[in-house]
Amino acid sequence: MTIKGWAATAANRPLEPYEYDPGPLRPDDVEITVETCGICHSDASVMNNEWGMTKYPVIPGHEAIGRISALGSNAKGLEVGQRVGVGWASASCMHCQPCLGGEQNLCLENVPTIIGRHGGFADKIRVQWPWAIPIPEGVAAREAGPLLCGGVTVFTPFYTYGIKPTDRVGVVGIGGLGHLAVKFAHAWGCEVTAFTSTDAKADEARAFGAHHVANTRNDEDLKRMTGTLDLLLVTVNVPLNWSAMMATLRPNGRMHVVGAVLEPIPTNAFALIEGQKSISGSPNGAPVTSQLMLEFCARHDIAPQTEHFPIANVNDAIQHLLDGKARYRVVLDIAA
Amino acid sequence: MTIKGWAATAANRPLEPYEYDPGPLRPDDVEITVETCGICHSDASVMNNEWGMTKYPVIPGHEAIGRISALGSNAKGLEVGQRVGVGWASASCMHCQPCLGGEQNLCLENVPTIIGRHGGFADKIRVQWPWAIPIPEGVAAREAGPLLCGGVTVFTPFYTYGIKPTDRVGVVGIGGLGHLAVKFAHAWGCEVTAFTSTDAKADEARAFGAHHVANTRNDEDLKRMTGTLDLLLVTVNVPLNWSAMMATLRPNGRMHVVGAVLEPIPTNAFALIEGQKSISGSPNGAPVTSQLMLEFCARHDIAPQTEHFPIANVNDAIQHLLDGKARYRVVLDIAA
Repeated sequence: MTIKGWAATAANRPLEPYEYDPGPLRPDDVEITVETCGICHSDASVMNNEWGMTKYPVIPGHEAIGRISALGSNAKGLEVGQRVGVGWASASCMHCQPCLGGEQNLCLENVPTIIGRHGGFADKIRVQWPWAIPIPEGVAAREAGPLLCGGVTVFTPFYTYGIKPTDRVGVVGIGGLGHLAVKFAHAWGCEVTAFTSTDAKADEARAFGAHHVANTRNDEDLKRMTGTLDLLLVTVNVPLNWSAMMATLRPNGRMHVVGAVLEPIPTNAFALIEGQKSISGSPNGAPVTSQLMLEFCARHDIAPQTEHFPIANVNDAIQHLLDGKARYRVVLDIAA
Repeated sequence: MTIKGWAATAANRPLEPYEYDPGPLRPDDVEITVETCGICHSDASVMNNEWGMTKYPVIPGHEAIGRISALGSNAKGLEVGQRVGVGWASASCMHCQPCLGGEQNLCLENVPTIIGRHGGFADKIRVQWPWAIPIPEGVAAREAGPLLCGGVTVFTPFYTYGIKPTDRVGVVGIGGLGHLAVKFAHAWGCEVTAFTSTDAKADEARAFGAHHVANTRNDEDLKRMTGTLDLLLVTVNVPLNWSAMMATLRPNGRMHVVGAVLEPIPTNAFALIEGQKSISGSPNGAPVTSQLMLEFCARHDIAPQTEHFPIANVNDAIQHLLDGKARYRVVLDIAA
């Protein structure tokens, strides 16, 4: 058989139509007929080899939703025809301590969906069965794609670190990840401050659930936030005024980074020591976390705010994202 | 009355005999007749105004042990004649959320014992009553001083972050704090690796309870430790090969800093994100944590390894410490 998609063949080149033969379906894999696929900033990073790990040609796309069209002989708990989602990872070793312990996203042999294999800007995609996440009743499938990478990436710290509804949460960057983080934090019961450098997003940030909005580039805004936050979730991948950001934390506060900023964050030991503060980071999320997140979305009526493009216009869609115009996540329509 | 001690009057000057009138005993304070006082590296940092917060003249000393000689009218749960210890902090507001919540060490109005007031290199010291920590049966009072600052500083992360006996712990720097951290980690049930740049300390580190010893400056040693540790406790205040140090962590690992290194730690976001890792820090410890630590020391027969100097030789004692010769904590004998 042949899978038809859109691939990058080198850095800084538009995607081109591309076909590949995936070979026989492996026992642990499932094949999914893709309906939609979100575009994440890391698709562009991989297309352009910004992280030095790209293998060309590569079909990007790791926020795919579709129906299972074939099951490997070892796949468990899934059925042909079932609607599932795929995120940043598509396989893990399943026998290391993180895997057996339920944190398959931390497996050292975790296979990213678009590194050394092909992703979801295509008519079909294959993943190891635990990484095909069932889409529950009450989640609109057409909009669910961005939850599988962007969503679970910002949901995971709430779940992992036991964030409490009494906590005060800041979200830096109101984009694909950040707008979902604001919605999650609000539904989690927290007091939420949205940090954005785009004043025009303030009203929308409030509509997503932010109680307060601060401008990341306004020193007065940052100063006013000093000592107020339990969790500061950084979703941008650009350098910030890190000392002012750290200063927004209360005692025991945590600055958690999910944006892959390349420049080192200069961390002052005193700023950690004085208030028993932490800086941390995390990748995507484990399969169970993704399942719980989707149940939480259904219960709290949380969905990404999206703009849809047909797959034929994928290059326009990516440019729209890179131009900073996405409000707030771009989704490709691949099949009805 | 007059309190007689040894004070610094300017940076980089020996301590000199010094007397002061503490005024009437405040209702919340207790007065302690000092028997011994440990010397911490931060005494030297304050003497020499390395942190820019020193107020001269200052009597250093914040690991004091002695007996209560007077109780303020509002002091609770203590008796005249009772043996107590004093650590880095000597007062807190007692009404903020950290104070009411039992984390008085994180109070923003927390008063360090030797900043803007006088410490324990003196015949008497006064502190707010919650900061006079009772010394329980089974803890040798003559050696207990270093537990009150150095000890609780490295005990606190075990207690705060729920370190498990199944965890693997690294301790960087086998000095006043580090040798106690190794003892605590061993008694906590963990697998313990001591990191030191002084090979001559290896055998002693093993005697303190280290299962393994690595040389902080040996790249091969650090490489061998890659991906092995759940907690890496950094007790030194000098820059390290931070990327190699972070690489020693397993998924979910934490590098925790209690040494006040002045140069920023360049933190790579990817190194945090990939394994869901944290960097954190903490100051001293709360009164309850100090009490629990002392009970733990009594139960596990943990004591600092000390060298004693008479208070008259305080300047020699400090020089001994600054020369890196302390094995492993210097204690001043002030009264029998």
